[in-house]
Amino acid sequence: MRGLHLTADLHHCQCDAAWLLDAARLGVACSDAAQAAGLQVVGELVHSFPPSAHGPGGVTTTLLLAESHLCVHTWPEQRAVTLDVYVCNFGGDHSAKAQALMGTLLALFLPQRTERHQLQRGTIATTFTPTP
Amino acid sequence: MRGLHLTADLHHCQCDAAWLLDAARLGVACSDAAQAAGLQVVGELVHSFPPSAHGPGGVTTTLLLAESHLCVHTWPEQRAVTLDVYVCNFGGDHSAKAQALMGTLLALFLPQRTERHQLQRGTIATTFTPTP
Repeated sequence: MRGLHLTADLHHCQCDAAWLLDAARLGVACSDAAQAAGLQVVGELVHSFPPSAHGPGGVTTTLLLAESHLCVHTWPEQRAVTLDVYVCNFGGDHSAKAQALMGTLLALFLPQRTERHQLQRGTIATTFTPTP
Repeated sequence: MRGLHLTADLHHCQCDAAWLLDAARLGVACSDAAQAAGLQVVGELVHSFPPSAHGPGGVTTTLLLAESHLCVHTWPEQRAVTLDVYVCNFGGDHSAKAQALMGTLLALFLPQRTERHQLQRGTIATTFTPTP
């Protein structure tokens, strides 16, 4: 269960609006990015939320990985996104792959401001480290 | 996107082994627990991993919630589990529901030792708070 959990909260994303609205397109991009990073996708689930009084509905994409999971939530009315990449160390240290996947997704959404953190999971010596 | 993300890493779980091995059973329990906590399940994906040289394969259960997501990973050979409950504040503050769901799952797995943390998502004033 030991491994690395990366979080990123993205504000003012400058990407094409489709990345915030089109669950199927985002799902394919996430799966491609995970595989390109060397992670193994074992399941995928996407959901589109209906429009609300605040604006168009966001989307959620979750990939189940052999190494754990990726979760993406979008809020198109705020041009905001949250990202979670968690990789356990089963079969090796996959930290670099997690960082690569996170980097690809940040480059996709093009946020003007990002809050990033990382958490070491499954160890008593848990540390929370804000990422510059 | 603002909201509460709870993590828990569970060690030495004393529960019936089925909760660590049976993806379908765990999926139903998670869905029931989420709904009982007042959260709205909009999608569910489970995966069972094959046995390895380390022992029986674990399972992953992910629920997509109207309020964000739940991810559960089990490592039966270690009697270990990781839990993630993330609820955004869209439509209200769902923090109490997230805490209720986490409490139900901790009571299900019966860990002898647990590392818990909480992270406020989507705010510049992000704080990481270890939970006693």
